[in-house]
Amino acid sequence: MEIIVREQEFILKNGTDLLLHTDAKTPMVYVGCGEENVQMYRGNFKIDDYVVERRPLTLTAARKTEAGAELDLEGVLTIQVTEQDGAVTLTPVCRDGSINRFWLRVQADAAEHVYGCGEQMSYFDLRGRHFPLWTSEPGVGRDKTTYVTWRSDVENGGAGGDYYHTNYPQPTYVSSRHYYLHMQSTAYSDFDFRHDSYHELQTWCVPDFIRLEAAPTFIGLLEKLTAFLGRQPELPDWIYNGLIIGAQGGNERSFGIVDKSLAKGIKVAGVWCQDWCGKRVTSFGKRLQWDWHFHKEMYPDLPRHIEELHKRGIKFLGYINPYLVNDGALYEEGKRLGVFAKKSDGSDYLVDFGEFYCGVVDFTDPKAYQWFKDEVIKKYSIDIGIDGWMADFGEYLPTDDLVLANGVSPMIEHNRWPVRWAQCNYDAVKESGKLGQVVYFMRAGGIGSQKYCTLLWAGDQSVDFTRHDGLCTVICAALSAGMTGCGLNHCDIGGYTSLFDNCRTKEVFLRWAEMAAFMPVMRTHEGNRPDTNFQYYDDEDCMEHLARLVDVYTMLAPYTKALVAENAAKGTPVQRPLFLHYEEDAESYTEQFEYLYGSELLVAPVWQADKADWEVYLPSDGWVHLWTGAEYGHGRHTVPAPLGDPPVFYRKDSAWSELFEGIRAKYGN
Amino acid sequence: MEIIVREQEFILKNGTDLLLHTDAKTPMVYVGCGEENVQMYRGNFKIDDYVVERRPLTLTAARKTEAGAELDLEGVLTIQVTEQDGAVTLTPVCRDGSINRFWLRVQADAAEHVYGCGEQMSYFDLRGRHFPLWTSEPGVGRDKTTYVTWRSDVENGGAGGDYYHTNYPQPTYVSSRHYYLHMQSTAYSDFDFRHDSYHELQTWCVPDFIRLEAAPTFIGLLEKLTAFLGRQPELPDWIYNGLIIGAQGGNERSFGIVDKSLAKGIKVAGVWCQDWCGKRVTSFGKRLQWDWHFHKEMYPDLPRHIEELHKRGIKFLGYINPYLVNDGALYEEGKRLGVFAKKSDGSDYLVDFGEFYCGVVDFTDPKAYQWFKDEVIKKYSIDIGIDGWMADFGEYLPTDDLVLANGVSPMIEHNRWPVRWAQCNYDAVKESGKLGQVVYFMRAGGIGSQKYCTLLWAGDQSVDFTRHDGLCTVICAALSAGMTGCGLNHCDIGGYTSLFDNCRTKEVFLRWAEMAAFMPVMRTHEGNRPDTNFQYYDDEDCMEHLARLVDVYTMLAPYTKALVAENAAKGTPVQRPLFLHYEEDAESYTEQFEYLYGSELLVAPVWQADKADWEVYLPSDGWVHLWTGAEYGHGRHTVPAPLGDPPVFYRKDSAWSELFEGIRAKYGN
Repeated sequence: MEIIVREQEFILKNGTDLLLHTDAKTPMVYVGCGEENVQMYRGNFKIDDYVVERRPLTLTAARKTEAGAELDLEGVLTIQVTEQDGAVTLTPVCRDGSINRFWLRVQADAAEHVYGCGEQMSYFDLRGRHFPLWTSEPGVGRDKTTYVTWRSDVENGGAGGDYYHTNYPQPTYVSSRHYYLHMQSTAYSDFDFRHDSYHELQTWCVPDFIRLEAAPTFIGLLEKLTAFLGRQPELPDWIYNGLIIGAQGGNERSFGIVDKSLAKGIKVAGVWCQDWCGKRVTSFGKRLQWDWHFHKEMYPDLPRHIEELHKRGIKFLGYINPYLVNDGALYEEGKRLGVFAKKSDGSDYLVDFGEFYCGVVDFTDPKAYQWFKDEVIKKYSIDIGIDGWMADFGEYLPTDDLVLANGVSPMIEHNRWPVRWAQCNYDAVKESGKLGQVVYFMRAGGIGSQKYCTLLWAGDQSVDFTRHDGLCTVICAALSAGMTGCGLNHCDIGGYTSLFDNCRTKEVFLRWAEMAAFMPVMRTHEGNRPDTNFQYYDDEDCMEHLARLVDVYTMLAPYTKALVAENAAKGTPVQRPLFLHYEEDAESYTEQFEYLYGSELLVAPVWQADKADWEVYLPSDGWVHLWTGAEYGHGRHTVPAPLGDPPVFYRKDSAWSELFEGIRAKYGN
Repeated sequence: MEIIVREQEFILKNGTDLLLHTDAKTPMVYVGCGEENVQMYRGNFKIDDYVVERRPLTLTAARKTEAGAELDLEGVLTIQVTEQDGAVTLTPVCRDGSINRFWLRVQADAAEHVYGCGEQMSYFDLRGRHFPLWTSEPGVGRDKTTYVTWRSDVENGGAGGDYYHTNYPQPTYVSSRHYYLHMQSTAYSDFDFRHDSYHELQTWCVPDFIRLEAAPTFIGLLEKLTAFLGRQPELPDWIYNGLIIGAQGGNERSFGIVDKSLAKGIKVAGVWCQDWCGKRVTSFGKRLQWDWHFHKEMYPDLPRHIEELHKRGIKFLGYINPYLVNDGALYEEGKRLGVFAKKSDGSDYLVDFGEFYCGVVDFTDPKAYQWFKDEVIKKYSIDIGIDGWMADFGEYLPTDDLVLANGVSPMIEHNRWPVRWAQCNYDAVKESGKLGQVVYFMRAGGIGSQKYCTLLWAGDQSVDFTRHDGLCTVICAALSAGMTGCGLNHCDIGGYTSLFDNCRTKEVFLRWAEMAAFMPVMRTHEGNRPDTNFQYYDDEDCMEHLARLVDVYTMLAPYTKALVAENAAKGTPVQRPLFLHYEEDAESYTEQFEYLYGSELLVAPVWQADKADWEVYLPSDGWVHLWTGAEYGHGRHTVPAPLGDPPVFYRKDSAWSELFEGIRAKYGN
């Protein structure tokens, strides 16, 4: 990148591409003040902003400095521009304390594509839309034209959601012009990519800094981005042993499902009992007792059972989140120790999680952080031999009347909370010497999840094929998180949310399992309403299908491990958009329903109902259909896609051909 | 009102109430520029604004002038403040041509109530909400929580609407602090009454002027407001003869319904055949042939039939609107004469009205205006003896690629269009010497409707009891229009819009008729889907009920005429909010489901289903229940409300008691 400084002009270029530009007439920054109105109902936020003032700041003076440049914007804002190892950082300092809104204009061109902004579920290419960045429930339905969304909105306080709602937003994007931009701010932000000639990046504070870096290839760019943001470690080997079975209901039922699955030939890596802590039935469905130790009645002698499982080569996974229900034992202990975030009147702030109320462990208070890490996570999970857990939630930090120990506004801490939560897990595991052995998986995220989160899962999809909340959103989630530096993702096979007569079918489950076989981790979930939704273990035929798909997954393990290692070493995501390896291919920049699984496999999951075949787009290369061996070239093709044989292709001249041919030999047609 | 001018301070007070205030630190005006995005689908608008800049203008200099004051705002804006006959006018002149957004802050107090802004359907007291002011379809359902709204939004391009959508918006309000404010602007506006300490009035231009006037009473204030805006003339006497029957289907069917009604004892003032011009069946329902002359096959010899009706003392009403369908004869004639608004490529702009397309008569072109007035309205309606019509629509002026003869942007002409349309009707009637005889009724309106529109009707309610699109919205419409200077309103008895299995019941029809008997005009409508909705003429019992209610209406005629005369003379609306006569009563300021019918009657329509009795609020006075003679005092009471006996009360010491007692003697219990 090139910094050009003239007396009253500042330019940042990447090759011939203009990225930043300001002079006496051309504002690059707008500042102002706003009065926000933020309402939360069970993790769903309604956020309005009354922008009292918004004014352009033009460049009044620019001078070269040793490290780069210093810009003066009308005496209101000074920006230090520094370049180090090719990365350019803009550090604004504001002299007007009333300013709480900041907009940066970045030069764009009409044909540009933009990716990232955390884990986006609806749109991979962000161009043409704006993306509010605020961690929240992702929404049920997420499409104002569907009945499920409408009912969720009306009956559950706006829970229907919209295209931009996500558990994991991040003010970082990658441009098809071969640069990334990261805005260091945890305030509410809104990145607007609707304008042809510029992007406008809004945040509700003066950001700490803005960082841009460029590279000639996207793989090289992600390496730079993750060198800055951090990288996820590798997964432990046991992950690749087979399926992680989501089962509930106590020792007998859960381990019974494991035995039944094993008897059907399903390879099992672990059993995940989210209700290890007990259950709580609400109108939403079966939920959990938010008191993070094993439930003595449902899971008596759990540590001994875990030992037995370990002897059989099976891992046990649990569940925790950073809240404690106010009728639980740990809440009592925490209350005695004063670990909860307060209201301004000094009482504990209790958050409504849907017919039950919880204290918020105040991670900004070192003693509260340490207590949760040592006396909760280590003591009750790690120390009894638990091998992993869903580290759920993190998105619900209220902003209306919450006082934190560090004195920082919850409007600033809200988006940071998932990362504080991730770090608490990370520190607990690391201090226990279990990094690389224990795997916790999260849906919430933010700046820093790259380092502190061992695995993402794609959140709570609806148990269906809908465009904005069904199977296909898992692909978008993985690709966009990958472009934000989080290259390890997985999902609830079959989806999670079943509401308003929307129930999981066998077809939904199997199509989802097909895709999951070509993802780094396979895990099932019974969903929020287990009894009324399809469960694989109730269907002989489905178990046979699943056994086969899990076996394919285990056969792929050497390949998958290599991809996971690449992600840990260089930040190249495991699931990759097509353009990552086919930069010359214009069509590959807008494809969000297929992915490259590493460089050698192309996966085009069937994400609609009643399909016997499926249209795929193959970038310019020679491709071999995994199940039939039929060869295809560049372009669009319709291929057979019976249940069990998802459209998957390997590169004709792949170094891994032998492995792929082995799968075809065993399971192909 | 008092104008206070100091060197760097300007204040406008009404008694002790501060209305306007600006000084070197306190902005009264914000200016800026925005880039709007306006999309129309069949009269439903999606309007977004990207506010590029918005900055406060503080007062840099103020000086007294002979007429008032001159204010200088940072050299950007000059405001001439003048006072004449107690009315204060602010005339802003802007020196910066890039400014296309203007916000005025008016001082408020937290307990203040605000009314008006044209014809509002959902909320009479505007406080606590903002009201975009843009004439459009009012929406079907108008409540995002209802199924009908959701289906309308999804299937009909956003036709569901919201609380603020109206055919008749106007940037004028009346404050409970005894002043009105009128902003002279036909640009898109948005009046925001959400802030405790100020109102913020936005318009998308620099307004021509802002006018404020105060009076010690609200009746006095409305007299001043209508002296400025204009007043509706009185209705002709024939209106009070009975019901105006909405009937369709040609001579035989329409006049047959009249005969059937008369035979059942229903007094008939007129028959309104909206399909006099022919019909057009679309997926929405039965619509019309938009070619404004009588249909030779459906209504052969219509002029002769009208003469026959007249001999029987019955009037005939038709239908017109300011568009011409592109397969009609008048469109051909208009095209030849070049009367239609154009696209920028010079071709006629054809507007989609729902499966058919129409030219827009360009009223800014004097020859087009004259042609429509003389060669359409006069020639084909007035000259054949038609006594009135629905002057429908006016809200659909497109803004995307429309070129008008006067060269003004359609963004400015859009809100003016309903008034141009009203004036075209007014001039046609006036020039024919028929003012006071012919009645045309409109749903669309704007600044000036007060003078040019002989009668409003409350638009296209859904055929139901819903809160935001049912019977009760007619009350809100009448009250808010009344506070904007339009005190003559009526409605489609039984509502109009039937979509998605929402069908009119007998109960809906009768409750609506009950209310209409206490309104200045009674008129039925078969609705958009006549065949699947309840029609009074198909039900013997209902006809008996209706005959009784129409008779009550005719018995009230002397009283109603006096009210209509008051409206014409002083702008005191016929239907009045309670506080108009009970200023001391705090509760009367928020009551929007009851109205005073003149000063002597209080009407509390039953607007929900399955009610045998009804709670009413009576302001401090002695009240007599119309049907039973039971007496009530100030406060809340539950009264019997069987079908046919709407909760209506008269003042105990009313000068009109004899008339009301006559009704009880004939129809009471």
